[in-house]
Amino acid sequence: MSTPGQLHSQAPYVLGVDVGGTKLATVLATRDGQIVHKVRLPTRAERGPEFGVARLISMIRQNLAETAVVKQDVIGIGVACGSPMDAERGIILGPPNLQSWNPVPIKAALEGEFGLYTQLENDANAGALAEWLFGAGKGKRHVVYMTMGTGIGGGLILDGRLYRGANGNAGEVGHMRVVLEGGPRCGCGKRGCLEAFCSGPSIARRTREALKAAPDSGILALAGSVESATAEHLFAAARQGDTLALRLVDETAHYMGVGLSNIIQALNPEVIVLGTIATSQGDFFLDRVRRVVRAETWPQMSQVVEILPSPLGDRVGDYGAISVILQNL
Amino acid sequence: MSTPGQLHSQAPYVLGVDVGGTKLATVLATRDGQIVHKVRLPTRAERGPEFGVARLISMIRQNLAETAVVKQDVIGIGVACGSPMDAERGIILGPPNLQSWNPVPIKAALEGEFGLYTQLENDANAGALAEWLFGAGKGKRHVVYMTMGTGIGGGLILDGRLYRGANGNAGEVGHMRVVLEGGPRCGCGKRGCLEAFCSGPSIARRTREALKAAPDSGILALAGSVESATAEHLFAAARQGDTLALRLVDETAHYMGVGLSNIIQALNPEVIVLGTIATSQGDFFLDRVRRVVRAETWPQMSQVVEILPSPLGDRVGDYGAISVILQNL
Repeated sequence: MSTPGQLHSQAPYVLGVDVGGTKLATVLATRDGQIVHKVRLPTRAERGPEFGVARLISMIRQNLAETAVVKQDVIGIGVACGSPMDAERGIILGPPNLQSWNPVPIKAALEGEFGLYTQLENDANAGALAEWLFGAGKGKRHVVYMTMGTGIGGGLILDGRLYRGANGNAGEVGHMRVVLEGGPRCGCGKRGCLEAFCSGPSIARRTREALKAAPDSGILALAGSVESATAEHLFAAARQGDTLALRLVDETAHYMGVGLSNIIQALNPEVIVLGTIATSQGDFFLDRVRRVVRAETWPQMSQVVEILPSPLGDRVGDYGAISVILQNL
Repeated sequence: MSTPGQLHSQAPYVLGVDVGGTKLATVLATRDGQIVHKVRLPTRAERGPEFGVARLISMIRQNLAETAVVKQDVIGIGVACGSPMDAERGIILGPPNLQSWNPVPIKAALEGEFGLYTQLENDANAGALAEWLFGAGKGKRHVVYMTMGTGIGGGLILDGRLYRGANGNAGEVGHMRVVLEGGPRCGCGKRGCLEAFCSGPSIARRTREALKAAPDSGILALAGSVESATAEHLFAAARQGDTLALRLVDETAHYMGVGLSNIIQALNPEVIVLGTIATSQGDFFLDRVRRVVRAETWPQMSQVVEILPSPLGDRVGDYGAISVILQNL
């Protein structure tokens, strides 16, 4: 039985830990969210979780030593990682990109080592907290956050706090179906999920399928071969005016817009923040999504919701981790 | 400027007002939800809102006089009515079934008359509050309520309180699309909404369409003519084993199950309470819906959610109105 970590709610600093499949990051930040010091190292997943947790501990030590900040001046440690997890007990349960970390009682490990209150949260929820506290959802009470990267994770800030649902799984809006039956197989095993149309790999798959029937497309000129075509090639070709690419981008915006409309009809949010692809493509993509949302949603709800790219971009991991702690203040 | 009504939060009684297109009801109940006295009268919408509001006031007077309860012993007055409305200011804005009531400042009218704190809420939200306080969602923190009657209204109890969203329109889960494009025209103007497949009139419409191609169906024997076929005829014929009727019931359960699955993936609720058709048809319909939900939803969410018929049934209007006040205690 380890002793619980101390929450120093008046302290000036906060620690954040971002556990990914390829890299680990630890940050020391001020309580108003300025990143003071960051350490990044490869996860080396093949060396197992004991190596990884030991590495995280030494990274946090480095954060503190190189800034001369003492533990008493740290509010607590926020940890963001992929699901599945037991967020309440702080145990990582082998997310898809880190399957050997199962189970890893990260909360107990860090609390035992540093004596600081530690809280684990899944990375989509951490991202939602980050956008709410520091990004496009700042000052709002109702924020939907959706990654648009490898998958479509989601997190919900409702009535000014993170909404977790019955057992911590709320916010999986990427796995709402946008077609009634059939549709492409999703990474989650279901068919026809929004993610199966609009994640980065899904856009790439749809692009490759379309290219087989259109070998003269400008997408192919950029990608080199059908097999190597990505979402980035698609958007680049669309910006050059390629007809097929524009059609695929419009289709993607249509799937996304219908999905967002369904979320808006249910949750009447003030802002939907979209990451990754929406951040890199900006209004070229988002204006198309917004047009679909306006056509598909009751005006009393579409008029009060903004659809915005994540301004945090790549920094959402750092801000997410510290926000896991800062949400409580 | 009228004086604000007094909230007597320790008082033993509560008043509820249910404003419908055809009937008005006022109830006096104890603070633990026992209905002590009820008055019902026709709305007489054709006589306009002044007549209706005067009638409501005299009905409330009757509630108090016939029970010898004094105003000081009443916590406040809850009013449930259809949307649109300005719930915050307590103004009814001409709902579809009562279009001449636009605007009707019901909160100001009742507070001016009785001096009691009065709160207006749309009837789907009031229903959600009723199921949470007195019905199938009692003791739960995350409850989705959906009517399955003339339309599919919805209300959300999230983290133990009514969730209203940015401007009071949250919970319109009946107007999430279940098909990507096209689909039948919904009463709301959109196409392909869940309501356009699964409301009572939508089920009847789908039944009539199917009957045109199947004049020997058992549904027709019950309905008499294609034009007079209703959802009740459909379910009765399905219970008798009619093939077409069973197919239509299964289809309805499929639409409903996909819609519920989408809600569950987003909100991870503990219970979904379905009214009207689900209440009258019970497990004959709900077991079919539950099978679809199990197939369409991640197990970690489908395992923790119950899909239940509303036990309040017709009484949801009375309980909804008093719950608008009792939610605050």
